[in-house]
Amino acid sequence: MRQSKGVLTKEKILLEATRLVQRKGFEGTSICDLMEATGLKKGSLYFHFSDKNELTYAVLEKARTEFLEFLDSSLTGRTAGESLDNFFKKVLGKHRSTKFVGGCIFGNSALEMSDKDKQVAVFIDRVFGEWIERVRVAVRSAQSSGQIRCDLSAEAMARHIVMTIEGGIMLARLEKSEKPLKDCLNSLRTLIELEK
Amino acid sequence: MRQSKGVLTKEKILLEATRLVQRKGFEGTSICDLMEATGLKKGSLYFHFSDKNELTYAVLEKARTEFLEFLDSSLTGRTAGESLDNFFKKVLGKHRSTKFVGGCIFGNSALEMSDKDKQVAVFIDRVFGEWIERVRVAVRSAQSSGQIRCDLSAEAMARHIVMTIEGGIMLARLEKSEKPLKDCLNSLRTLIELEK
Repeated sequence: MRQSKGVLTKEKILLEATRLVQRKGFEGTSICDLMEATGLKKGSLYFHFSDKNELTYAVLEKARTEFLEFLDSSLTGRTAGESLDNFFKKVLGKHRSTKFVGGCIFGNSALEMSDKDKQVAVFIDRVFGEWIERVRVAVRSAQSSGQIRCDLSAEAMARHIVMTIEGGIMLARLEKSEKPLKDCLNSLRTLIELEK
Repeated sequence: MRQSKGVLTKEKILLEATRLVQRKGFEGTSICDLMEATGLKKGSLYFHFSDKNELTYAVLEKARTEFLEFLDSSLTGRTAGESLDNFFKKVLGKHRSTKFVGGCIFGNSALEMSDKDKQVAVFIDRVFGEWIERVRVAVRSAQSSGQIRCDLSAEAMARHIVMTIEGGIMLARLEKSEKPLKDCLNSLRTLIELEK
């Protein structure tokens, strides 16, 4: 299917805006940055996104869709335990592929926007909720099949996993090294007593 | 001891700059914000701090000193296990007292500055290193006395604790609720099998 020029331009703006936000944050990304990155004039940018707020939500929504697809394709395996293990591997692979630049757009935005923009905070919190819920289902299933420990509720363990990964991404990005994230995924495996 | 007016003014600038940075980040804090917060004129601000870079390091250094004092006063107890438990309680209390606004200045700065300013990233990474090292000593000691599990190195467990807490602070700040941080500290207690 051929896409119209307008749709392609809109997608290009979104792609470059996402890249910029990932590196510089929402507040640090200016219209000038976006003009430079896309090669478009101000009028063209405003034709596709009427203001920064609209672009912000478009960036977040795109990132959310891609992230949920990533979760669905990573949390898979012959068993629930293997699914969790695959997920850990894919998380490391994902951040390794960016050389630990950019980090997690939701974690970054959470820290940037939590105290500034309640609506954005609610949006990001919902994404974390969706992430935790998907991990919770896998944890619950792995607990049922005896592949991880059962003395913590599936909800609490899923939250723990997500929180630890966010911290691990933060430190890996800071050190520009896979070690902090790799170590934290390995310690997770040990602590939750994961058997594949 | 009476302090000179100059020293008091400098301290006031630092205090307000720290508050602003905690809420708005380094890049989001402008000289105008600082003039408004301190009631000082531009000339007076520049008299005490020659540029934003100097102020950035002064803010980070002050936050580091206070944080290390917090760690030293929190990681205490009759036993190493109790020290860790007290530390978890104090972390929750610290963030409860700010109503989950501001979060962890090092976590925030890590996400804000990791890809932008290498020197700041190195500074923050060093603070995380100091934090992990202090927790590692307590973990090592608690492992020796059989108060937490031993199948993970003290270093890996200390890193895991710090990463999880950073993730927990992130989510608590996002939700403006103590639940995510409280839950993650409780799941840590279970997963590391902490006995007081």
